[in-house]
Amino acid sequence: MAETTAGELASALKLKLRGDPKTTIVGAATLDEATDRQISFVASPKYFEAAENSRAGCLIAPPAFGAEGRAVMESEAPRAHFAQALAILYPAQPVCAGIHPGAIVEPGAHIDESAEIGAGAVIRGGAWIGPRTRIGEGSFIGRDTRIGEDCILHPRVTVYERVAVGARAIVHSGAVIGADGFGFEMVNGMYRKVPQVGTVEIGDDVEIGANTCIDRATLGVTTIGRGTKLDNQVHIAHNCRIGAHVVIAAQTGLAGGVTIGDYAVVGGQVGVGDKARIESRAIIGSGAGILTSKIVRAGEPVWGTPARPLKQYLAQLAVLSRLARKRRGAE
Amino acid sequence: MAETTAGELASALKLKLRGDPKTTIVGAATLDEATDRQISFVASPKYFEAAENSRAGCLIAPPAFGAEGRAVMESEAPRAHFAQALAILYPAQPVCAGIHPGAIVEPGAHIDESAEIGAGAVIRGGAWIGPRTRIGEGSFIGRDTRIGEDCILHPRVTVYERVAVGARAIVHSGAVIGADGFGFEMVNGMYRKVPQVGTVEIGDDVEIGANTCIDRATLGVTTIGRGTKLDNQVHIAHNCRIGAHVVIAAQTGLAGGVTIGDYAVVGGQVGVGDKARIESRAIIGSGAGILTSKIVRAGEPVWGTPARPLKQYLAQLAVLSRLARKRRGAE
Amino acid sequence: MAETTAGELASALKLKLRGDPKTTIVGAATLDEATDRQISFVASPKYFEAAENSRAGCLIAPPAFGAEGRAVMESEAPRAHFAQALAILYPAQPVCAGIHPGAIVEPGAHIDESAEIGAGAVIRGGAWIGPRTRIGEGSFIGRDTRIGEDCILHPRVTVYERVAVGARAIVHSGAVIGADGFGFEMVNGMYRKVPQVGTVEIGDDVEIGANTCIDRATLGVTTIGRGTKLDNQVHIAHNCRIGAHVVIAAQTGLAGGVTIGDYAVVGGQVGVGDKARIESRAIIGSGAGILTSKIVRAGEPVWGTPARPLKQYLAQLAVLSRLARKRRGAE
Repeated sequence: MAETTAGELASALKLKLRGDPKTTIVGAATLDEATDRQISFVASPKYFEAAENSRAGCLIAPPAFGAEGRAVMESEAPRAHFAQALAILYPAQPVCAGIHPGAIVEPGAHIDESAEIGAGAVIRGGAWIGPRTRIGEGSFIGRDTRIGEDCILHPRVTVYERVAVGARAIVHSGAVIGADGFGFEMVNGMYRKVPQVGTVEIGDDVEIGANTCIDRATLGVTTIGRGTKLDNQVHIAHNCRIGAHVVIAAQTGLAGGVTIGDYAVVGGQVGVGDKARIESRAIIGSGAGILTSKIVRAGEPVWGTPARPLKQYLAQLAVLSRLARKRRGAE
Repeated sequence: MAETTAGELASALKLKLRGDPKTTIVGAATLDEATDRQISFVASPKYFEAAENSRAGCLIAPPAFGAEGRAVMESEAPRAHFAQALAILYPAQPVCAGIHPGAIVEPGAHIDESAEIGAGAVIRGGAWIGPRTRIGEGSFIGRDTRIGEDCILHPRVTVYERVAVGARAIVHSGAVIGADGFGFEMVNGMYRKVPQVGTVEIGDDVEIGANTCIDRATLGVTTIGRGTKLDNQVHIAHNCRIGAHVVIAAQTGLAGGVTIGDYAVVGGQVGVGDKARIESRAIIGSGAGILTSKIVRAGEPVWGTPARPLKQYLAQLAVLSRLARKRRGAE
Repeated sequence: MAETTAGELASALKLKLRGDPKTTIVGAATLDEATDRQISFVASPKYFEAAENSRAGCLIAPPAFGAEGRAVMESEAPRAHFAQALAILYPAQPVCAGIHPGAIVEPGAHIDESAEIGAGAVIRGGAWIGPRTRIGEGSFIGRDTRIGEDCILHPRVTVYERVAVGARAIVHSGAVIGADGFGFEMVNGMYRKVPQVGTVEIGDDVEIGANTCIDRATLGVTTIGRGTKLDNQVHIAHNCRIGAHVVIAAQTGLAGGVTIGDYAVVGGQVGVGDKARIESRAIIGSGAGILTSKIVRAGEPVWGTPARPLKQYLAQLAVLSRLARKRRGAE
């Protein structure tokens, strides 16, 4: 945690400051919990009263917020500016270039000299680790896999062979990228494995949550587009094609060959059947189930299983509830 | 496995014994599978017949169980006493104090001299490992993280930096504690990461299942109360506050800022939306979906999505089923 | 990847070849993506047109496929023969017998001399690793655990103590086999752990997906039958008994004591309650919820929660949809 002043922070954020620029800031907190040496933010006028009652020494607030007596930075986007303030107040752990003596780097692996390889990590032959990238303790990078620059792979991540990860990716602990897709043929009463010979490509600026799995393609490539964010325990099956700037919340699972367009938003615990197509900017409510080969378009969010437009879903819930009440009244 | 006699075991459990106290006991099994050198238990009169047909050499049974001809310990709580017997018959692997030469302990980490650090484990600077605690093989303990006394972290657990775990915690393999919460701001068409600068606090006597994830708070603390038990593959998002003695079954996911009161019971595959509040002693059926900001009170268990009281849920199922049957009859 | 010719491959697959046997094949792809040096397949007459437009240099196709001008292998089961071709074109990484100097093998562990133990793997005392088996980097094999011959454990797998795994098993990264079942007794207002003293037995030819968890039995054995395939992030609780040649898709969870008969097929994100019985060859649709102690028989697939035969499920959806439309029309 870095110590700064309201004046320095306001100038870093390019915000107009009211109040004492020498106000010390040593951290950030919610309106409820902030102390007089912490900064907080006021998302909208709805929170003006809470902000007035807050002990925060400094606030990022809409210009209309009028309270006096402390440092206030005026912002039209207080939440976004607060996020920037967090990045300044709590700078990321710097990468310490070098290979830990307890790491195993096979001959033929390329490690950029500015990269950091943690204790117990294993980098196999032919792998390529880019500048300023950190491979966490106990992580595994398979043969001929390429990890771009400025990535952070946290401890205990697995990336199988021949996978490509772009720049600035963040991968959390326990994630598994490039395991075999789930494909079998029944031959004489036994399932015989279909070799999964494809790979996985992950774009720049992707974040992958803890214990999330992204399977390699049977043939070809499973892709995760630029800027896409996957929460914890997500499952992406073989040959899915996820666009750019998609958000997928925790515990959602996509079956084989699903495509998702740019800027789609998928809630948590959603299930998507084989080859379904989620179009660009579509919104899928948490817990929804999308049937095999279904197309989900942008516009009204979909809910329920099988997923239908929100209004229709609510109308069905209402009619069911009314009928059950009527029936119980009649009994 | 330890060998004992019915007499010794009854006296350890403080139970009245009928039959031969010299009966040898070398293990425990179900009524169906027990041999004459094993102990089993009779949960209630419903199982008296199965117990009479069992080959078990020794039984823990309600006093009303009258069968003769073998060792029987009388108990008003046979299941709980049987669990105690298991702990005696199958004592936990003792902790072997010391740091394995294949472990990596950074300077500045404090390891109690009675603690055990397994091969391949990595303990970063500023971490604190309490007395008689075992850190399993390949586990990772981040900077300034504190693990209390008498804990068992099984192999391949990750605890990120600045997390606190209480005494007697058990954490299973693959669990990830303290990964970043899932928070982003859209800025110029790209999601920008909101730094997750909070932490996680886990109380005493907590058990955490395999591959379960508990994210750190954005600001402040994600808390898991004393005595709470989480099954496998559970997801706890940033800023959740779980009370004491809560049980959460496998594959359940809580979104950000959910609170759960003491002694609540949450089934498996439940989804709980942002900021929902599950009150003390509430019961949530498996597979239920709790909407954002919803309050679930104690009393009748809730089921379905959106979750409703069990009676209402069943009435709705019944009315739907009747209507569909009628319609099909009419066709 | 191996380079071969259409003639050599056809003779390995025992298929009749039309066209030039000297056609070079350096890989495989879908009809859409294949180049003139790649092989593809034509699953059925539905794909004849796509096949004619494909640039693939070689095809495996039904005998009725008449197109000229390239190498075509005639097959009554093109998909299965294509899977075999993949295994020839992309041979599995050979096992390199030996123990990596960065692995830890405790005294008293038996490692077959043809087995391979990767860097950072830990094999505890009393474990037994069979011929030609590969234990991946950072994997953990507990005390007295037995892994059969010709198995592949990918990096970062955990197998707890006293587990048995058959021959030719494939276990993906992050899988956890043998963690404690989830069992507690309430004693004086606190949950007390019921020691989980059973084990896990896994048959021959089983495949286990990434981050899947199989808990050990409380007493006795959790079993996974021969030839069964589990996808990623599946949860199998204590004392489940899964038959042979069962398929379970991703993110499905089974509660304690569930039994599943041979050749059953379970979709993704299914939840199965305690002690339910899925009979041989039963089919459960994705997302279904099976109640505690329920019996699911072979025949019509079941869908929904609580699971019911597909026709009934569809009839209920239809009636609900009609009522909601009618109501909205009336408003």
